Amino acid sequence: MSLYDALFRCTALDTVFSDGSTLQRMLDFEGALARAEAAVGVIPAGSANIISSRCRVDDFDSAGLVQHAANAGNIAIPLIKKLTETVASESKDAARFVHWGATSQDVLDTSAVLQIREAFEFIGRDLDSLIATLASLAERHQSTPIAARTWMQQALPTTFGFIVAGWLDVLLRHRQRLGDIRPRVFALQFGGAVGTLAALGQRGPDVAKALAKELGLSLPSLSWHTHRDRLAEVACFCALLAGTLGKIARDISLQAQTEIAELSEPAEEGRGGSSTLPHKRNPITCAVVLSAALRVPGLASTLLSSMPQEQQRGLGGWHTEWETLPEIIKLTGGSLHHLANMLPGLVVDVDQMRRNLEITNGLIFAEAVSMALADRMGKMPAHLLVEAAAKKSLTEHRHLKDVLLDEPGIRGYLTPADLASLFAAENYLGSAKEFVANVLNEVSSSAAR
Amino acid sequence: MSLYDALFRCTALDTVFSDGSTLQRMLDFEGALARAEAAVGVIPAGSANIISSRCRVDDFDSAGLVQHAANAGNIAIPLIKKLTETVASESKDAARFVHWGATSQDVLDTSAVLQIREAFEFIGRDLDSLIATLASLAERHQSTPIAARTWMQQALPTTFGFIVAGWLDVLLRHRQRLGDIRPRVFALQFGGAVGTLAALGQRGPDVAKALAKELGLSLPSLSWHTHRDRLAEVACFCALLAGTLGKIARDISLQAQTEIAELSEPAEEGRGGSSTLPHKRNPITCAVVLSAALRVPGLASTLLSSMPQEQQRGLGGWHTEWETLPEIIKLTGGSLHHLANMLPGLVVDVDQMRRNLEITNGLIFAEAVSMALADRMGKMPAHLLVEAAAKKSLTEHRHLKDVLLDEPGIRGYLTPADLASLFAAENYLGSAKEFVANVLNEVSSSAAR
Amino acid sequence: MSLYDALFRCTALDTVFSDGSTLQRMLDFEGALARAEAAVGVIPAGSANIISSRCRVDDFDSAGLVQHAANAGNIAIPLIKKLTETVASESKDAARFVHWGATSQDVLDTSAVLQIREAFEFIGRDLDSLIATLASLAERHQSTPIAARTWMQQALPTTFGFIVAGWLDVLLRHRQRLGDIRPRVFALQFGGAVGTLAALGQRGPDVAKALAKELGLSLPSLSWHTHRDRLAEVACFCALLAGTLGKIARDISLQAQTEIAELSEPAEEGRGGSSTLPHKRNPITCAVVLSAALRVPGLASTLLSSMPQEQQRGLGGWHTEWETLPEIIKLTGGSLHHLANMLPGLVVDVDQMRRNLEITNGLIFAEAVSMALADRMGKMPAHLLVEAAAKKSLTEHRHLKDVLLDEPGIRGYLTPADLASLFAAENYLGSAKEFVANVLNEVSSSAAR
Amino acid sequence: MSLYDALFRCTALDTVFSDGSTLQRMLDFEGALARAEAAVGVIPAGSANIISSRCRVDDFDSAGLVQHAANAGNIAIPLIKKLTETVASESKDAARFVHWGATSQDVLDTSAVLQIREAFEFIGRDLDSLIATLASLAERHQSTPIAARTWMQQALPTTFGFIVAGWLDVLLRHRQRLGDIRPRVFALQFGGAVGTLAALGQRGPDVAKALAKELGLSLPSLSWHTHRDRLAEVACFCALLAGTLGKIARDISLQAQTEIAELSEPAEEGRGGSSTLPHKRNPITCAVVLSAALRVPGLASTLLSSMPQEQQRGLGGWHTEWETLPEIIKLTGGSLHHLANMLPGLVVDVDQMRRNLEITNGLIFAEAVSMALADRMGKMPAHLLVEAAAKKSLTEHRHLKDVLLDEPGIRGYLTPADLASLFAAENYLGSAKEFVANVLNEVSSSAAR
Repeated sequence: MSLYDALFRCTALDTVFSDGSTLQRMLDFEGALARAEAAVGVIPAGSANIISSRCRVDDFDSAGLVQHAANAGNIAIPLIKKLTETVASESKDAARFVHWGATSQDVLDTSAVLQIREAFEFIGRDLDSLIATLASLAERHQSTPIAARTWMQQALPTTFGFIVAGWLDVLLRHRQRLGDIRPRVFALQFGGAVGTLAALGQRGPDVAKALAKELGLSLPSLSWHTHRDRLAEVACFCALLAGTLGKIARDISLQAQTEIAELSEPAEEGRGGSSTLPHKRNPITCAVVLSAALRVPGLASTLLSSMPQEQQRGLGGWHTEWETLPEIIKLTGGSLHHLANMLPGLVVDVDQMRRNLEITNGLIFAEAVSMALADRMGKMPAHLLVEAAAKKSLTEHRHLKDVLLDEPGIRGYLTPADLASLFAAENYLGSAKEFVANVLNEVSSSAAR
Repeated sequence: MSLYDALFRCTALDTVFSDGSTLQRMLDFEGALARAEAAVGVIPAGSANIISSRCRVDDFDSAGLVQHAANAGNIAIPLIKKLTETVASESKDAARFVHWGATSQDVLDTSAVLQIREAFEFIGRDLDSLIATLASLAERHQSTPIAARTWMQQALPTTFGFIVAGWLDVLLRHRQRLGDIRPRVFALQFGGAVGTLAALGQRGPDVAKALAKELGLSLPSLSWHTHRDRLAEVACFCALLAGTLGKIARDISLQAQTEIAELSEPAEEGRGGSSTLPHKRNPITCAVVLSAALRVPGLASTLLSSMPQEQQRGLGGWHTEWETLPEIIKLTGGSLHHLANMLPGLVVDVDQMRRNLEITNGLIFAEAVSMALADRMGKMPAHLLVEAAAKKSLTEHRHLKDVLLDEPGIRGYLTPADLASLFAAENYLGSAKEFVANVLNEVSSSAAR
Repeated sequence: MSLYDALFRCTALDTVFSDGSTLQRMLDFEGALARAEAAVGVIPAGSANIISSRCRVDDFDSAGLVQHAANAGNIAIPLIKKLTETVASESKDAARFVHWGATSQDVLDTSAVLQIREAFEFIGRDLDSLIATLASLAERHQSTPIAARTWMQQALPTTFGFIVAGWLDVLLRHRQRLGDIRPRVFALQFGGAVGTLAALGQRGPDVAKALAKELGLSLPSLSWHTHRDRLAEVACFCALLAGTLGKIARDISLQAQTEIAELSEPAEEGRGGSSTLPHKRNPITCAVVLSAALRVPGLASTLLSSMPQEQQRGLGGWHTEWETLPEIIKLTGGSLHHLANMLPGLVVDVDQMRRNLEITNGLIFAEAVSMALADRMGKMPAHLLVEAAAKKSLTEHRHLKDVLLDEPGIRGYLTPADLASLFAAENYLGSAKEFVANVLNEVSSSAAR
Repeated sequence: MSLYDALFRCTALDTVFSDGSTLQRMLDFEGALARAEAAVGVIPAGSANIISSRCRVDDFDSAGLVQHAANAGNIAIPLIKKLTETVASESKDAARFVHWGATSQDVLDTSAVLQIREAFEFIGRDLDSLIATLASLAERHQSTPIAARTWMQQALPTTFGFIVAGWLDVLLRHRQRLGDIRPRVFALQFGGAVGTLAALGQRGPDVAKALAKELGLSLPSLSWHTHRDRLAEVACFCALLAGTLGKIARDISLQAQTEIAELSEPAEEGRGGSSTLPHKRNPITCAVVLSAALRVPGLASTLLSSMPQEQQRGLGGWHTEWETLPEIIKLTGGSLHHLANMLPGLVVDVDQMRRNLEITNGLIFAEAVSMALADRMGKMPAHLLVEAAAKKSLTEHRHLKDVLLDEPGIRGYLTPADLASLFAAENYLGSAKEFVANVLNEVSSSAAR
């Protein structure tokens, strides 16, 4: 684990993409390949057994392999060489059949797919957990008034539940996307040196089928060595998710500002606090999540830029993916994990939300008054009356309600009680509650699927 | 049309996103809104009729609107103001109901969705056309031998049909993706100032439902003003497609090099030629397609970066999309259109493909010989024999077949006729033909859907 | 001008990069080339005069050229063809010498350099103007207390002048960068078909020298057709500048929030206001500037990605620059122009800045008290005492000063007068004033240069 | 070292940015700070000595610190806490003065600057070495004819030396850029919690001056906590350099193709070869260098996107730099190192370059013939004659020279000897040699500086 791993990533995904796991997934491919080839009669079952039994990463010296990778051009070459030696130490005959008919890219790509599948397990789980947390938050606060803000200015009242339901709604779409791309991504890569499986004569397709079955992957129409849409789509999915998480963190950090103080990250010993600045509650998780939202798009564009790979094996473009795609997944998954872990402890200050609604001296309710008056005195007179009162409120620093109470033109249209009711946030929430219910229903029905 | 439009874009998409069309789609929204509100009884039918009849872009002065947009913050504000004036000239009463209950972003986002829907029509059609062209090309050349190249070096023989089938296979996935994202993208945006539709009292959801129906869009659970995954996903889809097109163009341009000369773009008067350099056939379309593959990823990352939009209306992030997303779609669609138009005229030089297979003095068949010998004399002796012969071939500049014919060690294992057969590309194509058939079947079955 | 130009760009730069200006700069190159070749005796002076006199964009039909560009591969080819026809209508002889010895890229690149030079004039001027505005703002507010915020939380007091001086300091570095890159960018492109100026025999260097002189550009060691660092560096400069402007806009928009309300963009009729939401003052300029800060990095990465151009003329990479670089310059220059224009009208609410300093109930001064006490009673006892008082202040919602006044442990160390002084922002500003003076001195001395 | 480090990076830079070095540079800051504060009398000399002597990374448990960083928000906080404990174990008094008056970002930024300074040493050295290699290559091949290629098509002859001089010329500009940015980057970061150095009373500037001197850094006008242009400029410099290196690798890999075979990477045991594909010499270094050119732009755009950092400490933007900037420098420096190491062994096949010039059946000399004829028979007749001959050459697959020898129209203008001379590449190189000399002179004079 390097210096910033604990901050930006999460242990589970770090493990999935650790050097050890990466090499093990490659060895898994080699073992499965041997078994598949034995199953269809391309290599002897005995050799397959020996090969399969030697595919244990712990028996390999990772540092040594790394040194050879620089000259060989990829890590699979020295790994296979070493595996062959290891097998040969038990059976020269079996050693002949190591990696039979395959090419380095078959190993590297398929093992990457296996790792992505593992990573998606964790991501799916954290996504579910985040959805559950937000659903309960949206429900709890479906009637909690808060100022909606547009252009970073207070605009009209809404509910905190409505805001949370907005976050939630997107996450449901992300869960759907994850489902959409799974079958495209979880596909075997197996084509041999140039995709034709020539070294296997006519047995290529049989081996491919058996190998896909061994690994639980789908069998594509043909190999996809220089067609990288499957992996680039993973990057895009992650970038979309990271962007949404960033939006949630952006909102939380804005509402956590000292002057707004509606939300704060959970207070824990040694977490985001400062003894010399005791009033501060630094939104650490937001910083991490916003950072991922800044980092993943550039990395995704790198993967997209590297798609036009040359002919039957890319020169540079393919190499670009090796570190970039795991990094994208780890940063996105880390962001998701940190946010999913933090949110259950989110501190919501309902009173402060209400207090902030008062900060404009009632002007936030000008539209509500205007609409109500329009029904009774016509749109234009209503508009002019409220506009004049609003100006007075601004220049005289008086509450709009008080200005209006003093306004003779209003009498006969609105009683003081009417006015009081118009200045209650609860009465100008439109269909916020219904919209929240829509999303919560969607959560239930999508969970049921 | 500006200087480079004809080069990089296509007329149909330029029209979809022209200033005039953009304003018309906004007016379409306003007209549909009025009709929807009349249908559910929120505004009088007579007013709706008047509004609806005035939503014709030709009656508006686009240049004037542009000037006001800079101060207003977006183009919808002056457009709606002007529409209100236009309606008021016929009926002051009707003018009150223009844009009733909606916010600028409702107009801007929904009209963008309508434009994307139109653009996807064209893109879908060009994608189908490109798929059809490639399917026929793959079929025609399913047995045409060509050198497969890895690391930009000749590796083994394959068929040109196999290479084309690889391009084709990805495009089928893109067609599938287009299907996946359509329902997520073609969604109404309608939330009023802060998403609650407060100005419509309790009638918001009814109006929304009627409006979605008017426009043929789906009705989301709630508005998505600062949740931009729908649009960012369009950008990602385009970037994936542009990357794949770039891969095809990369391959064609490499095979079109003077020294390789297997493919060339169609020769037409004044197209990519040069009278002072008469041997040149510049791959103009490839340049355009490769350029799109370079440009779209950066633009996509911009859209992804702008996802964390503030609160209930983004400050800067939203503004970032206005020009960026149309540009992404136009560049991708332009790239697709140019490639789909060029490919039917692609010049394929089958003889040159075969000649290039001879350029290595038979070394490209070394693996084939080695595999055949291994079956008869064991893997290791076969390998050593061929390796020595290959070295001789390289240093003495002799054809590997001739070196092997002189090699006493080979006698008893391979006859001259065997050898001749091993040096025929046709005999070392593995399952290329079957893989091509897989993809062609996929084309047929996906077309049938 | 298209729909969003007035919002994101500025008239001056739009003009520099308009289609008409672009073609005119190309014609300027052709005219200068003819004159230079006449000057060194490569073509007849009479022909040069005729060519030179025909290089007026108004005589050309831009739309027609655009159509031919798509087939020719670039806009210079049809332009030169048309120029040749135009010259031929006066003199067949002179027509032979149009574009003599040059290649399309010579025209396109040199004219781009000429446009960049013009653009830099405007950018330099707006940069100077922004620097002057900020210098006067920093000076005026060098003693205006305000809460410094870290992690979007109030941290300690600072001055508004210090914040402005920080903005200013970066802009001075940008002015320096502009000076650094000018000589690298303002360089002639002139190499003929492949850079050797072969068509000019041995006269190439003489013509190049005369041509550079004609255009006021520097003469590079050799042509740079596929070496794009000069232009990519322009993109980087712009991206750095756009990022800094975005930082300023980020700060202003945060301080302009309804709940903070320390700054606001100037109030003008029809500018960022809303009659139904009378309390809002939307920071329109900040949105535009933040949008540029989001858009330019992706465009810059596109230009950087396109640097590895093939051999002696790029395929796709070069084409990528044609629209991308002008867009980068226009967005950056537009952002700068809008900000430079808005800032002189920035509304600064000094009283509100002071009020916000009171929002933490004095906790923002805890460090000041702690430091003062540490001098008298030792660091650790001081720290513990203040920490306990701070906790009390937080839980009992009392002002820290009042809590401390009640604290017996403090007596003998700090008098009530001492305490009062410690809770005055003016007394805990460190060297803010000196730092502001440093920057203002730098402004004066750099202006003097 | 992780799996791909040896492939993409280089040992020296990996060491500079290793976790150990990173922590040590932070401790260097803390030591220097103590000594500086003692020097100006802010803390006791004895305490400074103790602190300074404890700033040895080997005494710290890096893994433990990492775990705390996640909660604290950055790695400096737990490091300083641990340092304080370590110092306290010797002297409680001295412990009070650890990190006196500084903030985490002072440590993190200044230590990053120190690491960049070290990295630039290596990069500068490798740049010098690459320049020297290319200068000698350009000189050696200043008269070696080769086909220049535009649009990936043979265009005209040039020299290999000219091509190399083009690479070289850019690298000289990069060396100049490195000089330009050094003074802007090598600047102290020191501002305390919010930039005012309030905790140091009025002594802040004195301490800053002494600290800058201790570390050999320049002293800026004020701290630059949220003004990141210095670091973003480092990223831009790297991206420009990586792009240029990518261009060189692009050229080499194109010229190394089996069918072109003019260049190849050095042949070494186990390097880029394949025993089953004996004709292959995979351009491993080119792949690595092209990969860096694909990866760095996206990372640079990330850094540029993160520039608009909030107020007095960025939330997310700052965090984005921690891993991104070192990665940019390591990838760029690794690319440079690998290329600088490979190029001295580059295999240049001069004969093959000449053979490739013959591949167009003389058409590559059509312009030379045309120019020569134009001098004697007028431009238009010459052009028509050569154009017709070229067509014949293409359709009849005959050498253009032979076609022309048979052409009666040519007699009286060109003798067979004239023609032979026109078909010699040496005679149509324009001023290639002079241009190469220009660059070599520039190398000498810039080295002398």
